Amino acid sequence: MVLILDRSDPAGAIAAAAQRVSNRGRWGADDVLGTMNHLDEAKRAEGARLVRRGVAFSLAQSFDEHGPQKGWRRRTNPVHTMLSSGLDAEFGPEDFPHGLGGADDVVFMPLQASTQWDGLGHIFDHGMAYNGRRASQVVTSDGDQLTGIETVASLIAGRGVLLDVGRALGTDGELPDGFAITTQHLQATIDAQGECSRVGRGDLVLVRTGQLTRARRDGWGDYAGGPAPGLSFTTADWLRGTDIAGIVTDTWGFEVRPNEFDVAFQPLHQVAIPHIGLFIGEMWDLDVLADDCAADGVYDFWLTAAPLPVTGAVGAPVNPIAVK
Amino acid sequence: MVLILDRSDPAGAIAAAAQRVSNRGRWGADDVLGTMNHLDEAKRAEGARLVRRGVAFSLAQSFDEHGPQKGWRRRTNPVHTMLSSGLDAEFGPEDFPHGLGGADDVVFMPLQASTQWDGLGHIFDHGMAYNGRRASQVVTSDGDQLTGIETVASLIAGRGVLLDVGRALGTDGELPDGFAITTQHLQATIDAQGECSRVGRGDLVLVRTGQLTRARRDGWGDYAGGPAPGLSFTTADWLRGTDIAGIVTDTWGFEVRPNEFDVAFQPLHQVAIPHIGLFIGEMWDLDVLADDCAADGVYDFWLTAAPLPVTGAVGAPVNPIAVK
Amino acid sequence: MVLILDRSDPAGAIAAAAQRVSNRGRWGADDVLGTMNHLDEAKRAEGARLVRRGVAFSLAQSFDEHGPQKGWRRRTNPVHTMLSSGLDAEFGPEDFPHGLGGADDVVFMPLQASTQWDGLGHIFDHGMAYNGRRASQVVTSDGDQLTGIETVASLIAGRGVLLDVGRALGTDGELPDGFAITTQHLQATIDAQGECSRVGRGDLVLVRTGQLTRARRDGWGDYAGGPAPGLSFTTADWLRGTDIAGIVTDTWGFEVRPNEFDVAFQPLHQVAIPHIGLFIGEMWDLDVLADDCAADGVYDFWLTAAPLPVTGAVGAPVNPIAVK
Amino acid sequence: MVLILDRSDPAGAIAAAAQRVSNRGRWGADDVLGTMNHLDEAKRAEGARLVRRGVAFSLAQSFDEHGPQKGWRRRTNPVHTMLSSGLDAEFGPEDFPHGLGGADDVVFMPLQASTQWDGLGHIFDHGMAYNGRRASQVVTSDGDQLTGIETVASLIAGRGVLLDVGRALGTDGELPDGFAITTQHLQATIDAQGECSRVGRGDLVLVRTGQLTRARRDGWGDYAGGPAPGLSFTTADWLRGTDIAGIVTDTWGFEVRPNEFDVAFQPLHQVAIPHIGLFIGEMWDLDVLADDCAADGVYDFWLTAAPLPVTGAVGAPVNPIAVK
Repeated sequence: MVLILDRSDPAGAIAAAAQRVSNRGRWGADDVLGTMNHLDEAKRAEGARLVRRGVAFSLAQSFDEHGPQKGWRRRTNPVHTMLSSGLDAEFGPEDFPHGLGGADDVVFMPLQASTQWDGLGHIFDHGMAYNGRRASQVVTSDGDQLTGIETVASLIAGRGVLLDVGRALGTDGELPDGFAITTQHLQATIDAQGECSRVGRGDLVLVRTGQLTRARRDGWGDYAGGPAPGLSFTTADWLRGTDIAGIVTDTWGFEVRPNEFDVAFQPLHQVAIPHIGLFIGEMWDLDVLADDCAADGVYDFWLTAAPLPVTGAVGAPVNPIAVK
Repeated sequence: MVLILDRSDPAGAIAAAAQRVSNRGRWGADDVLGTMNHLDEAKRAEGARLVRRGVAFSLAQSFDEHGPQKGWRRRTNPVHTMLSSGLDAEFGPEDFPHGLGGADDVVFMPLQASTQWDGLGHIFDHGMAYNGRRASQVVTSDGDQLTGIETVASLIAGRGVLLDVGRALGTDGELPDGFAITTQHLQATIDAQGECSRVGRGDLVLVRTGQLTRARRDGWGDYAGGPAPGLSFTTADWLRGTDIAGIVTDTWGFEVRPNEFDVAFQPLHQVAIPHIGLFIGEMWDLDVLADDCAADGVYDFWLTAAPLPVTGAVGAPVNPIAVK
Repeated sequence: MVLILDRSDPAGAIAAAAQRVSNRGRWGADDVLGTMNHLDEAKRAEGARLVRRGVAFSLAQSFDEHGPQKGWRRRTNPVHTMLSSGLDAEFGPEDFPHGLGGADDVVFMPLQASTQWDGLGHIFDHGMAYNGRRASQVVTSDGDQLTGIETVASLIAGRGVLLDVGRALGTDGELPDGFAITTQHLQATIDAQGECSRVGRGDLVLVRTGQLTRARRDGWGDYAGGPAPGLSFTTADWLRGTDIAGIVTDTWGFEVRPNEFDVAFQPLHQVAIPHIGLFIGEMWDLDVLADDCAADGVYDFWLTAAPLPVTGAVGAPVNPIAVK
Repeated sequence: MVLILDRSDPAGAIAAAAQRVSNRGRWGADDVLGTMNHLDEAKRAEGARLVRRGVAFSLAQSFDEHGPQKGWRRRTNPVHTMLSSGLDAEFGPEDFPHGLGGADDVVFMPLQASTQWDGLGHIFDHGMAYNGRRASQVVTSDGDQLTGIETVASLIAGRGVLLDVGRALGTDGELPDGFAITTQHLQATIDAQGECSRVGRGDLVLVRTGQLTRARRDGWGDYAGGPAPGLSFTTADWLRGTDIAGIVTDTWGFEVRPNEFDVAFQPLHQVAIPHIGLFIGEMWDLDVLADDCAADGVYDFWLTAAPLPVTGAVGAPVNPIAVK
């Protein structure tokens, strides 16, 4: 099936896709886990068996003032400051007995500032949150009362699969900005990478576009919110049909940007989060892992990506660790 | 060997212990990893083989305003606020096209506020940091320039061992405040728990005292900085001799408090961090895991405890995930 | 008229008072200034003429971690951290040419943490904000869209009058916690202090209870939210009838606490802010000024109390300066 | 005297100027007030007599995410978030009895983010702070221990004088970026504006360049740290000789930028703050006041510019209020 998008009607396309892919009620009216339900204990045990060499990769960007944020919607880069430093310990007034010195620190950061998971309370469709709940009854100024990121704090550990679309289909490993990754592109990548890249129920799928590689080389530019390669709106059915637990890109916004409608803002989010209940990760740094996968031809691995359990967070920073 | 502490001479005891246990230079003058060097790929692969059932446990406390901090040294509990909420999406001005609504959030938090790893730049001995470096040349107001927590961001994944001293030696699973856990107590716990609890090179050792269980029941009280069970100063040699990669407690401060000298502040830290180069975790929530271990008698497991890589952080929040 | 409160019916008392004192529409449907309309240029010029000696008093508490907040509703004390310090300048790596060194800093603080003005968007009555607007259309997650504190940023400069009720009617200058200051008490204080204490249109009235003096001596205790002397609910008519521009106390919550109903929370706020449109200041430090007034018998002065114009703030920190 | 700067020798020029203008010891070895000593009670009383019409002007920029900061040295714009909003009050769960609703908020901001005073601990010369103190003994990670901004919290209220150099000497009211304002330019402006613009002991001098006007029209561009009109290094003697209490510009950095040496960073700061002990204000919005002064020909007025007394701050936000 080739989906043809009517560029002038995002609302119609969203409504139609939502109807096709909805997981509303699939795990009961009280469900708060969405697609993380797919990542059960059997799947997790399978994932752990992928560890062979014991080599570990962090998939997090650096959390610091040099990140991509430029202030859009009050999203700044993390600001890390010291409450005390080694200079105080060596040269400042004595704070502690017997020569003890200490350094402490604090951070201020938007939870969407860097490598993160979107929680199920991050996006709404016409005021509706995941599982048919009213947005206002899920996320108040006190945070997400039902689907806060803490609900999945222990769960996101399982089989990871890297789909290096940038390397499989791009030029020098990078897709150009505006490149819409379709189901066909995903399948072509799986075919190119081989059997270990098959995607199925409960998997955590990491899609590398190469945009972060480019930003690292050329500067952030408009990385945060600007043109980018990313998932096509038309992948909604694949995202639902595969029964994956989560999906991740190395870009700011997961979806291709500009979006594929004349006037639109992140329409695939509007289907994926409130309707599929899908966990989406953004701004992951997949490059070192991708080099390793290209080298040994093994694209699946054990992945732990437990978000920092800020109670009621609608998204959360994470230091994902892949182990092969 | 029974160590007798001279309560009036913490500085002398610290200096003597430091001389006995120092790892300075052990991994070269440029080393920034300390005991995390022990957790090599072979050890990591061994750890992964401990996954059998696929059940995962988060060992993090909740990161929110209900935590234990009371403001000592400007350490507050995390403050989480919303940049936008479901109420805005449902009832506020329209922000986005085609019915999209979004919620975003920020957090302000001391990095030592809740479940965390101490980095190697957290503690100094007479102005000296790990590996004989001057504190002032390691940690400035710009953060830790050499041993920031990001240096171990990908590494802390391996075999975890729970030593449930509270359950083995305490009353109703809890050690009283002020209880100093000695090497003998650790060994007795290992003996009680059985062979799977042996501790060796590269292991991540989780010591449960039961104090958090008590705080959960009775209120935080002085949990942050007050009397607590914890490691005796005399365990320094065991901490070094076992070649463990890291050690963790369910308490605020790792060590027994009040400390075992007349006038002292966290003397074991002063040996363990700058001299052993040991990674210490604090305020971990070990209770659910401990119940499971008690039930199935299996006290070792796969543990991923990758700190949030705030660049230059001297400590960092973490959502540790144990998988059995 | 002696008002008798029915302790069991705060809602009824609030509704009745609101009807008596409402300024809704008084300055037009678009008004955003409330009682600050009373402080016109003529009044301001009068206020300036009160300066005789040229002595200035700051009426702000210290903004730091030693303040009264204990975390209620995520209100912490201000956390001030350094981005660089004199230690970096003297001993750290060289940052700047020709020997220049610099120190910088940041602050995180709830806007209601210390000495402050409540803005007109701070309190609502049954979802209604000042001037009959719907709360949801005034204050969203983006802040107060209409009556943000910036609207009065330039205006709060005029005649200040200290009513030192603590000194006039208390013991050793302090009213006990739970003391409800009535209109009669205010008038008795004015009478005791003399003609310079008359209160009229456009004035900024500072009511000293002595509670802060007590907290300074005995510790904060429950200063933030606990029992306190303060204005009686029955003063609502006086607050409206005098046409004052603003009123201030040296307490956390302006009103007497416990409040004067069986089950209630700050009922006078519910009348004063959305119905009178009154500017209320809290946690001001009036003690040094009060000593001076007692010494020279002059209780009115020139007062500038311009809040920090955080755009959309529903309250704001302020360093009020009285000049006599 | 015409000062000729050797562009290749900022260090030499700084040292020479420092020797000529130093106020070290002028008010005793313990002094913490610097030039604020000039603003005595007699001067303050004089200032108050300048109020005639009672019209007040706020000279603060808006404190919000739309400010000029771009992250240099972790200086972000203020981030203001709501702890609760009118949406919660109207549509959220009931928080309070009898229909009370409330909104609260917090702010995170670098103290140098917007309209501010530099404190005496903000700048050092070769590790030396104001009055010959070692930088390390004045400003630690705990803030400024001696000359924190709170020391002048009550003092900065007196006679303000606007020198609208942009209007007097610029094109369409604006000086071009890179324009170095010399003593001659200041004098020419005073001459053009007339007798009310004379500058003397204890005055607070506001220098308008017009750069903010330009930024408001054209966008911030490099306002924060880029090229700008500003005071010439050669004004150091005038700054000292006039015995003014403080000086302010409508620019980010007070001094002309690029600075007047081949390789330099803010050399006039290095003389003015640690040697003269001068209070410098930056990023003030002088435009509305300037229009009024041009209209009525009165360039002096009452100015209250009391910084928010964040304990130990080396700079502080302020909402300055001029009253004519």
